Amino acid sequence: MLAELPVADEDARVGAAERNGQLTKPPAALGRLEDIAQWYASWRADARPRITAPQIIVFAGNHGVAAQGVSAFPPEVTEQMVLNFQHGGAAINQLARNAGADLDVHPLQLDSPTQDFTQAPAMSEAEVTAALAAGWDAVRIDADLLVVGEMGIGNTTPAAALAAALLGGEAGDWTGRGTGVDDAGLTNKTRVVAEGLALHKGQGDGVETLRRLGGREIAAMAGAIARTRSLRIPVILDGFICCAAAACLAHTAEGALDHCIAGHLSAEGAHGRLLEGLEKPPLLSLGLRLGEASGGALAIPILRAALECHSGMATFAEAGVTDA
Amino acid sequence: MLAELPVADEDARVGAAERNGQLTKPPAALGRLEDIAQWYASWRADARPRITAPQIIVFAGNHGVAAQGVSAFPPEVTEQMVLNFQHGGAAINQLARNAGADLDVHPLQLDSPTQDFTQAPAMSEAEVTAALAAGWDAVRIDADLLVVGEMGIGNTTPAAALAAALLGGEAGDWTGRGTGVDDAGLTNKTRVVAEGLALHKGQGDGVETLRRLGGREIAAMAGAIARTRSLRIPVILDGFICCAAAACLAHTAEGALDHCIAGHLSAEGAHGRLLEGLEKPPLLSLGLRLGEASGGALAIPILRAALECHSGMATFAEAGVTDA
Repeated sequence: MLAELPVADEDARVGAAERNGQLTKPPAALGRLEDIAQWYASWRADARPRITAPQIIVFAGNHGVAAQGVSAFPPEVTEQMVLNFQHGGAAINQLARNAGADLDVHPLQLDSPTQDFTQAPAMSEAEVTAALAAGWDAVRIDADLLVVGEMGIGNTTPAAALAAALLGGEAGDWTGRGTGVDDAGLTNKTRVVAEGLALHKGQGDGVETLRRLGGREIAAMAGAIARTRSLRIPVILDGFICCAAAACLAHTAEGALDHCIAGHLSAEGAHGRLLEGLEKPPLLSLGLRLGEASGGALAIPILRAALECHSGMATFAEAGVTDA
Repeated sequence: MLAELPVADEDARVGAAERNGQLTKPPAALGRLEDIAQWYASWRADARPRITAPQIIVFAGNHGVAAQGVSAFPPEVTEQMVLNFQHGGAAINQLARNAGADLDVHPLQLDSPTQDFTQAPAMSEAEVTAALAAGWDAVRIDADLLVVGEMGIGNTTPAAALAAALLGGEAGDWTGRGTGVDDAGLTNKTRVVAEGLALHKGQGDGVETLRRLGGREIAAMAGAIARTRSLRIPVILDGFICCAAAACLAHTAEGALDHCIAGHLSAEGAHGRLLEGLEKPPLLSLGLRLGEASGGALAIPILRAALECHSGMATFAEAGVTDA
């Protein structure tokens, strides 16, 4: 999937930069909005694009490692929340509507959790391939922006294990409170991650690490991000677990995340470290720690605003405004 | 205008907090969205509100002190940009549309700049009263959110002078590059602010300081913010100049800005210090330094998202999801 990575369009990048310099505002006065507008333009190969068809996908999976008591919630909540997504009652439903985005929800064999990675690889080769393909196939080819997120009780634990395996450091550097474990829970979670690292770290590339320490929804996010790259659809990354999925791609092919920006910095302790490792400064920092694509969805109106300014504003010449 | 300050509704605050605790998410997982949703609910006296009628107002004014060369742009740009606002070509037009907000533009006697505050008070008592009243009258009584902003070549200089007079410190602590002055321009601007402070600091309360060092668009923003308080319409503050206007109210009556949140931290150097002085942590930090209500407008979709989640999500009981 990552064998041929399309790159951004240079003509569109240059055209967007020229347009940006002519708009009725002081130079750089729109700050990061200018940067992300030009980044988006270069990936869409259009110097004056707009966002009209954003897609949000939430993948759900269950985790064998949840049996080790790593979450404040019981595993059946994964399926209950999928029903909540399907009935429109979750945060992401409201955020998708607020962002004018289509929301697709893909539960992935919730009745067959992955293996407990302290005992065995989380997935077989066939399982990880199927999960990557589910992600690949979930992307709408006519989307012009993707936000990808997840639901999976216990999944900050595989995410922490993946981050530690791919980016280095100790288990404790990457574990956090997730949806709200207490001190004893955090100690237990750190032990579980350390055991997983002892068994699986350094046993292969990003995708092999994903197979051993990840989960179906994490692999599906990686597959979807890879698919958007093949289609040159820009991506807004969500929180810690989404970024752990993205890290598997970054570890596999250099520049694999050039079509992605980070939507937000979450309250999960190690997300900032993970974003630094990916060299993705976040657009927002509002203390979210929900997953389900929520932080990425919240950033859609910001990116759309950037494009509305870039593509909708008058130039100094058009408006008859004196330039500095 | 500040004689009787309505306060937030306690019943709505309690009702919103109870509802927040029942929504299908881990406790506090929506971070600041939860805080601002409950803050908004308390001001609207409705435990489950939505934002349906946001208003953005841009006031424009010209400044005698601009003749001292404090801006990178010539004074005629104020009127040119007002025309640009009226023709839909400015950043705020795109941002208002993106936010689903009504935009009103009020130029205030652009052909009669204020006095140069290094020589005399910027405004007479009649002038400041008229500008405050223009702001008061500009608020739509059926709005459910206000973002207020400004256009006025040279107006980071009166804003810096107001901030220094009201919050203390030296002229150099509050002057910045505005729309892009160079090093020599910044030195000159700091001198101008210091001269204004020497002449006017400590000569009266917040409104008298506003009269002596402010400008028409700055006074109008203060008048609009006061009017929204009387109507219990929540406000998202914009950047440095808007916050300097707000500081005049905060200095006049304690708690006068309790119905306001800060939309963003701008790239104008002293804005962070001003927000700290007002005890208003910003929602966004994207390096904007444009004024014209742009940063506040950009925060509207964030606040709306917070209310959509708060008022639209299912409770654990409604969705049949197991609570932790």
